[in-house]
Formats: sequence, structure tokens, C-alpha cells
Amino acid sequence: MDKTSKVPLYFQLMEELIKKIENQIYNEHEQLPSERELCTIYDLSRITVRQALQDLEREGYIYKLKGKGTFVAPKSYDQHLSTLYSFTDEMAKLGKTPSSKVLKFRIITVDERLAQKMEIEALEDVYEVVRLRYADDEPLMYETSYLPCKIFPNLTAEQMIEKPMYDIFQKDYQIGLTKATERFTATLIRDDEAVHLNVKAGQPAMLIKRFSYFNNQLIEYTSSIARGDKFAYTVELT
Amino acid sequence: MDKTSKVPLYFQLMEELIKKIENQIYNEHEQLPSERELCTIYDLSRITVRQALQDLEREGYIYKLKGKGTFVAPKSYDQHLSTLYSFTDEMAKLGKTPSSKVLKFRIITVDERLAQKMEIEALEDVYEVVRLRYADDEPLMYETSYLPCKIFPNLTAEQMIEKPMYDIFQKDYQIGLTKATERFTATLIRDDEAVHLNVKAGQPAMLIKRFSYFNNQLIEYTSSIARGDKFAYTVELT
Repeated sequence: MDKTSKVPLYFQLMEELIKKIENQIYNEHEQLPSERELCTIYDLSRITVRQALQDLEREGYIYKLKGKGTFVAPKSYDQHLSTLYSFTDEMAKLGKTPSSKVLKFRIITVDERLAQKMEIEALEDVYEVVRLRYADDEPLMYETSYLPCKIFPNLTAEQMIEKPMYDIFQKDYQIGLTKATERFTATLIRDDEAVHLNVKAGQPAMLIKRFSYFNNQLIEYTSSIARGDKFAYTVELT
Repeated sequence: MDKTSKVPLYFQLMEELIKKIENQIYNEHEQLPSERELCTIYDLSRITVRQALQDLEREGYIYKLKGKGTFVAPKSYDQHLSTLYSFTDEMAKLGKTPSSKVLKFRIITVDERLAQKMEIEALEDVYEVVRLRYADDEPLMYETSYLPCKIFPNLTAEQMIEKPMYDIFQKDYQIGLTKATERFTATLIRDDEAVHLNVKAGQPAMLIKRFSYFNNQLIEYTSSIARGDKFAYTVELT
């Protein structure tokens, strides 16, 4: 640490720790020295160390476990938002093995509110499909999809288990996505989702609502809970 | 409630409560009947009522206060992501009065990491500006901006207090944004931010990192904490 520099000390400490994480001197999920130890190692005040750790946590480099300490966070996935994408394809591109578990598959009748969202008639039937999405056996997203029955007649849970949803659309129904709208809000992981996602309830998550279209026909409405520690979304504005 | 319908009961209850919120039978921040009371009023099981309330909370219609009950949430702002936008302009468009409070204004020297992000040389000087952004006196965003000193010579805190940042860029430096990149992640509001944003720490927030360019020159790097209960971001994929 250079105490005469105009580079704030907590920036210097952040840089030092990030280098150690990037050079894998500290590995994923490895515990970092405690606040107190970092004060001693780098001869810094508690307030400086705390600021650096807070900012590293915010930046997604580390995570804290209450009463246990500070650990190196896993790397997150950066999703660029411009063209249509699917979880399956994106994970495959990154060399990960995508898979899904179907937690629920049933037909329900939509109420007015959901019908309006889906641009269908109230009291129409839709499939409600809840899936857990994995990359290399790590659960990352908890998704609830609604698909109009009249667009996908005779759809079964077995099809959903066998192949990716968009493959079913394409191969079994000759329906491809032509556009989609996604709406992002920040939320907290609930108890019932935490169990499946293998994280603590109350952790941050991205709530993504996707409305997919085939020409001007809505074919899918999906609400996804994406783990906040694993996903970032980037967009370009012009 | 129609118990013979194939519309799930918790959907029916959600629709019922949303109608009451939208028709202002329940007003913003007004307390809803308790879980127990809703069970009695609508003759529903506790599990159904709980599911409906959980989903209404997730959808941003209501919020819970520990030990106090359930309340009607304020409406959120929907930001469309495609063209460049500014907080000031967006709020003005909605008929709100935007304003900012400058919490911090200083010159610091950037470390290697921040320099890399900002595409400038390490050890260059930048302004660090922390601002709280309001709409109609309600604090909504906590923003930290870094601006290269050599692009904005002699910038002062007074300028920042007097007018919107992009107005300063444009009017005092003849620099307009030509493009920007934004990166979204879900995070939690920290203690130090909660005080300013007038919300509880641990609530969800959107962390937005904006990199703004004038032609191909980076002119601004801003990290914003946007209240999760107040902002949604929508993007179109083609």
C-alpha cells in the first residue's frame, strides 16, 4: 500500500485482493483473511478494510457468510441483451453442460390478469411448467413458463424432460421465436426457491419476465428467478 | 372465489386484490387485511392466501414489514432500454420533479483496475462524484460517477449542484453522449445507502454500471444503486 498516493487506500486494497483472486492465489469459495487480519497484513485501518470488502462484495468478487467470514465468489455469466438467446445455447457456448429438471407440469385456466398479459382470452387453458435450469449440475435459474394450449396441442411433461423447450417449439411444432421482450427487476430469493437454487433465502436475484412471439402471436410467458451472484446483463444504448 | 374453476384459487385471490389496488380501494402504503383475515373473508386456506401474497410481493404490488403486516407498494418506473436516457429527462417526462443532492465531490487518482475500466492511464486523475437522485423529493438512486479530469477541466461541485450532469457536459464542455453501455446485476441495499434512500438495508436493488462515450472516448463511468421497488427495465430482443 502506498500511503502517499492519491489513489484511495481502499482502492489499493481492492486491487491487491482482486489480483490475488484473478491469479488464483485465492480460489473460488476459499476463505479470505478476516477484516482484522487484513488490517494487520496491509497496515490499514478497519474502516479502509471494511470499505474495500464492501465494494468487493458489491462487485461480485467475494461473498460473506454470517459468522463464518469472507469467501471468493464464483464467476458470473455475462449475458448480452440484443438478439434472442436461450439459456441452453448460451451455456453450451461457454462449454458448460446445460440441463433442466421439470418440477411441475400442469394445465390451468388463466384468470383475466394472466390472459391480458398473454394476449389471450380469459379462461383459456395454458400449460404451467416450472423448471430448474442447471449448468454443469449447478442450479442457476428457477423458471415458471406459461404456454397457450391451443398453440402447443398435446404437449407433455415427457417432451419437456427430453429436450430444450425451444427445440420442442421448433421441431415438434414448427414454431420459432421471432422476437421477445424481457423485463428486469431486482428481487430476493424466497425460501421455496432457495431450496432448489442451493443458496440462502434473502439473497439478491434478477426477476426476468420474458414475452416471446412468433410473428405477432405470443407463444410464451416465462418468469425466471436468476441467481444474482451468477448473472449480469449488458445492453447498449445509442 | 369460484372453487369449481380451473383457475387456481391463488390466481383468483391475486386478481381480486390487484383490482382493489388498481381501483384504489386499497391505496399506496395502506395496510391489507392479515393472512388470517383474508382466509376468513374469502374462505380460503392459509396456504392459498400465502401463495397469493408471495406472488403479489414478487410482482411488486405489495410489500411486507416484519411484525407489522402487508402494505400496498408504490408504483414503479418502467425504463425502456434502447436509446440513451437520463434520469432527469425520464422523470420530467413522467411529470415528476427530478433533483439531486451532491454527497461527495473530490479528485482521486485511479488505480490500475479503475483505469482499465475507464480506458485511461493508471494514475490519471478523475472526479469522484456521489449523488442522491430524487423524484418529487423521494430518493430513488444512489450514484457514484467517475469523470476524467482531462476531459472536464475545472469542474466544480457547484456546477454539479446547479444543473444536471449531462447539461454540464453539453453546455459547459460541448460534449454529448453518443453511446453508452449498461450492465445490470441484482444486489442488496447496504446500511450506508439505506439511510440515504430511506429504505431498509437488505432490500433488493439494481446495480447499474454505465459507461458513456463521446464518439469513442469514455467520458463517464457511473455505478448506480436503483431501488428495486421503484425500477423495472425492459429490453427488446430480435
